[in-house]
Amino acid sequence: MKTFYLPPRDKWEKLCLRPVLPKDEIENTVRDIIQKVKSEGDKALVYLNKIFGGTGTDTIRIDNAEISRSSEAIPERLKTAILLAKSNIEKFHSSQIISEGIVETMNGVRCWRKSVPIEKVGLYIPGGTAPLFSTLLMLAVPAKIAGCEKIIVCTPPDESGTVNPLILYTASICGVSDVFAVGGAQAIAAMAFGTETIPRVYKIFGPGNQYVTKAKEMVQTEGVAIDMPAGPSELLVIADETADPDFVAADLLSQAEHGSDSQVVLLTTSNKMLEMVRNAVDRQIQSLERKEKAQKSLENSLLIQFETTGDCIEFSNLYAPEHLIISTADALVIAKKVTSAGSVFIGRYSCESIGDYASGTNHTLPTNGYARSFSGVSTDSFMKKITFQEVSAEGLAGIGPAVETMAEAELLTGHRNAVTIRLNSLKND
Amino acid sequence: MKTFYLPPRDKWEKLCLRPVLPKDEIENTVRDIIQKVKSEGDKALVYLNKIFGGTGTDTIRIDNAEISRSSEAIPERLKTAILLAKSNIEKFHSSQIISEGIVETMNGVRCWRKSVPIEKVGLYIPGGTAPLFSTLLMLAVPAKIAGCEKIIVCTPPDESGTVNPLILYTASICGVSDVFAVGGAQAIAAMAFGTETIPRVYKIFGPGNQYVTKAKEMVQTEGVAIDMPAGPSELLVIADETADPDFVAADLLSQAEHGSDSQVVLLTTSNKMLEMVRNAVDRQIQSLERKEKAQKSLENSLLIQFETTGDCIEFSNLYAPEHLIISTADALVIAKKVTSAGSVFIGRYSCESIGDYASGTNHTLPTNGYARSFSGVSTDSFMKKITFQEVSAEGLAGIGPAVETMAEAELLTGHRNAVTIRLNSLKND
Repeated sequence: MKTFYLPPRDKWEKLCLRPVLPKDEIENTVRDIIQKVKSEGDKALVYLNKIFGGTGTDTIRIDNAEISRSSEAIPERLKTAILLAKSNIEKFHSSQIISEGIVETMNGVRCWRKSVPIEKVGLYIPGGTAPLFSTLLMLAVPAKIAGCEKIIVCTPPDESGTVNPLILYTASICGVSDVFAVGGAQAIAAMAFGTETIPRVYKIFGPGNQYVTKAKEMVQTEGVAIDMPAGPSELLVIADETADPDFVAADLLSQAEHGSDSQVVLLTTSNKMLEMVRNAVDRQIQSLERKEKAQKSLENSLLIQFETTGDCIEFSNLYAPEHLIISTADALVIAKKVTSAGSVFIGRYSCESIGDYASGTNHTLPTNGYARSFSGVSTDSFMKKITFQEVSAEGLAGIGPAVETMAEAELLTGHRNAVTIRLNSLKND
Repeated sequence: MKTFYLPPRDKWEKLCLRPVLPKDEIENTVRDIIQKVKSEGDKALVYLNKIFGGTGTDTIRIDNAEISRSSEAIPERLKTAILLAKSNIEKFHSSQIISEGIVETMNGVRCWRKSVPIEKVGLYIPGGTAPLFSTLLMLAVPAKIAGCEKIIVCTPPDESGTVNPLILYTASICGVSDVFAVGGAQAIAAMAFGTETIPRVYKIFGPGNQYVTKAKEMVQTEGVAIDMPAGPSELLVIADETADPDFVAADLLSQAEHGSDSQVVLLTTSNKMLEMVRNAVDRQIQSLERKEKAQKSLENSLLIQFETTGDCIEFSNLYAPEHLIISTADALVIAKKVTSAGSVFIGRYSCESIGDYASGTNHTLPTNGYARSFSGVSTDSFMKKITFQEVSAEGLAGIGPAVETMAEAELLTGHRNAVTIRLNSLKND
């Protein structure tokens, strides 16, 4: 881990830069895949499943019987844990549905907004060694709460064409409409444009490898909404001398194990804490199953000592971390000063893993500094807000002349006429 | 205008397709402009102002004295109208700030969200024949209400390097931090990456020509957020036999005058209404200053007769219009059935122009069918939501074992350890 002691303020911006990832190399490949899916539909999906995943079957839609059976394969203990997480996620995401009142901006001019579910949404769940059922929970639960009518899931199948039962079980308890055994850029293209089997959706959610990310970026320019831009996962910890160095080390490692491009950062006012955390990381990493990934990630990572916790939070706001753990004596006070972060974990017992799985907050969060302008996924992400206005004759009489004046100043006489013709009709009444 | 009588349902989707605009031709030009601004900063801006706008000066930042003076050039009547609009926009957009409570998802697990302003935002206001001060109102007012610290405006100067006083006046009353006399793709690049004079911002808002639109699309893939994808403006009117055909015609024309690519659509259950509106359009268009633009736009436009108002609203939801006027006897009932639209105008006196300028709702709205998944600009657009969680020792004891189980099932032992090490410490206490 790279260590910095009391870095001068003019170096902060540079310290906030994330490792730059190679771009655009894969753009042509992804463009070809999208084109192929657009023109050949299901046929392209079956072909690409074979090429990229070695999948031998040509079934795309997982049938309901297989989904029902999935429950049998899951240990009771794990099912109980998933249901607990689901319940917490439901509680928090239900609280995000708020109906707003009508605002009478002038006599007879009434304005309001209404949240309406996005009718069709697509969730991408990556495959690979571990089945990310937690990500499916984080996306399908708010989609259902929002009231989306069609919630489809795409996830890569294994060589026999089947999808991990944990994904199927989670889909079944969350009210997912359909699961499709398709992965990669082709899955994104299928959800964006539709095929014979996979319906076109209006918004696509979920993490993925660089092909998936590039495909989401590309279909976004063709009218499909996406959750947010993607980047490697990150954790920043602010710890003072009251923190437990073993807890902090475990938190840093929990993030580092995500992948070699994950970034972890420790900010502390205590030189002693910095050394103790470094030692604890060296000790704990030995027992990790993903030790190599974590080790690689730590090479990019930062330990920084600052003069005050005020400096720590200021640096953190500049960095805009995806996850922020505050383990200080006055954690709640520091938390009030956060202006840019995805999700914040307050106090010694609030570890990131709890939010990753079960506290109730969402784990789909802005990385790579995007927390400066983006929110994490929430129930809002599955809805859009429509504005309404109702103007009475009295309202028109009050507001009309101002609109006429402004439309004229913008040289839009058609806009003015729509008001004038109505005002005249009032005079004639 | 193209007319369809009782089109069969399987033709609806095709009728909802917007005219396709040529894409990507300008991509290389815009890429070069962005690169030039990135590498040369202000120098590139001065050069490009000269090349594209014929501007002879090299001043980029409009000085405060010029902004203060702008008020003198504006007629009192217009200033009063602008202040009225501003007040209504403020009322409606202030009502959108809602603080949410804390949710205790389990004993000792407390979760909440907080809305925080995006620190720096950039507003683009197009130049051209008409100074779009109304768009500046629609963007700067919610930015200020959200609490954005830095609100900058870029807008193209005229040949003498000056910016229209109406834009400057509006900027001054809305609390804009700085106005820069730069237009086009170069303005978007400057706000996205910063130059010596123009600060980098985290989110860019505002309409523009195809170069501006393409530049927004391109910087979006480099970590800068944008308001929403752009497309030509649209209006759909649902009218029954109780509507006033002159009002409807004036509304259709108010949209058509925006530009030759604007689309206007009339849905009606009354054949007689359809004919009366067509005649009124032919009559009213003669007196429009932008007659030619409107005429061109009408060529792409649709008059459709449906059997029932139920069919009308169903078609409208499929079309997802930017603006929707409902002029029927039961307008409020129909409005409750809207599932996709940007902004809805209810009843005979609620013309679109009122919302464009002054009712209080925002006029920056999703076009081109994006209303299926996007909301219009609101105060929310200038904020991001950060989630927080605080887990007590009791909370950890309750939730910890479930998190351990799930982390293990996802093969993330580091995630599990962060919980285990804390649970063990509780046992030792």
